[in-house]
Amino acid sequence: VSKGELTRARILDQALVLASRLGLEGLTLGVLADSLELSKSGLYAHFRSKEALILAVLEHTRTRHLEHAKPYFEGKAKGLGELRAHLAAWLDWIALPSLPAGCPILGASFEVEALDGPTHDYIVKITLASRARLAQLLKQAVATRELCADIPIDQVLFEIRGITLSFHIEHRLLRESAARERAETALASLLSRYAAKTDSPQTLKR
Amino acid sequence: VSKGELTRARILDQALVLASRLGLEGLTLGVLADSLELSKSGLYAHFRSKEALILAVLEHTRTRHLEHAKPYFEGKAKGLGELRAHLAAWLDWIALPSLPAGCPILGASFEVEALDGPTHDYIVKITLASRARLAQLLKQAVATRELCADIPIDQVLFEIRGITLSFHIEHRLLRESAARERAETALASLLSRYAAKTDSPQTLKR
Repeated sequence: VSKGELTRARILDQALVLASRLGLEGLTLGVLADSLELSKSGLYAHFRSKEALILAVLEHTRTRHLEHAKPYFEGKAKGLGELRAHLAAWLDWIALPSLPAGCPILGASFEVEALDGPTHDYIVKITLASRARLAQLLKQAVATRELCADIPIDQVLFEIRGITLSFHIEHRLLRESAARERAETALASLLSRYAAKTDSPQTLKR
Repeated sequence: VSKGELTRARILDQALVLASRLGLEGLTLGVLADSLELSKSGLYAHFRSKEALILAVLEHTRTRHLEHAKPYFEGKAKGLGELRAHLAAWLDWIALPSLPAGCPILGASFEVEALDGPTHDYIVKITLASRARLAQLLKQAVATRELCADIPIDQVLFEIRGITLSFHIEHRLLRESAARERAETALASLLSRYAAKTDSPQTLKR
């Protein structure tokens, strides 16, 4: 890793925190330069425009999110074990104290029609990728016969996303101490409704 | 209604559309004056600061939302009828074509730690009021014996909010044609899980 890459990562870590607090609209090269005590021209060497900076921050957020989630999977069994690890990592990410107003990708999802083409497209791409990853984990839990084969994947993806968003609002906006418990109750209830009925006659038909 | 009040309402309708598209951060007196072809000083006669404008827009949004919801309740029976009317009005509000990027209150809920004190407090106040209203409708459906008496109100409020937020993302960001159907399926499933079991032995115990 070169010195330039380290500097870039340090800049992007700070930009991530600022994007969390100010939103993508509020993250400008000027604000970022000030908070890093860098000259604006020094910053221009790394990012040539606000748009380039925002795309870099979004990619950096995605990278940091994947790094954040990785340890949750250690020692977890394929299937429900990995699915639950993914969901726990997701809730912890939403509540991450180092992001002052939560994940900037989530924030941007609600201001995205205000954003220009490439940023909009990138947010859609990340959101679809996150949905595809969750779909894969659900299908894996069907393959391990922990979830039932007729689980309506798209419906469950819709509902899981809702639970995470409601957790964001109750935890971050309303500062409800019961928010995490409600999110976990909702997730457990959802998954239990689609648990494979191993002792039921339906299983015998397989 | 005075001419001044009409002008104010016309200004706020435009501000509401701009707040939807640009977020509260992006809504400035300058941008609003330009889009109305008013002088900035003319606008200052109505709102003395950006903060005053934003609070007025949020109040105006709340008023418009209540006006929007009213007709849904016409001829609806107390209980599940009114609850379903409220939920249909909510989903339609989220998808309202005249708000280019959706309800600015919802958008602001995700950028709210970036906002100053009074705006933050007002968003929390509106969010709690909306939760209290929904709680009241749920309790009314318990009183009419359509929902069961042991329904966990706070948990259901959490889950209903999640469904509306997921609908916003799938409809507005991902432009999923099935978004509305998924929201309605999730709501119907949630309410059916807490339907009063009129034929069950538990009811006989009352």
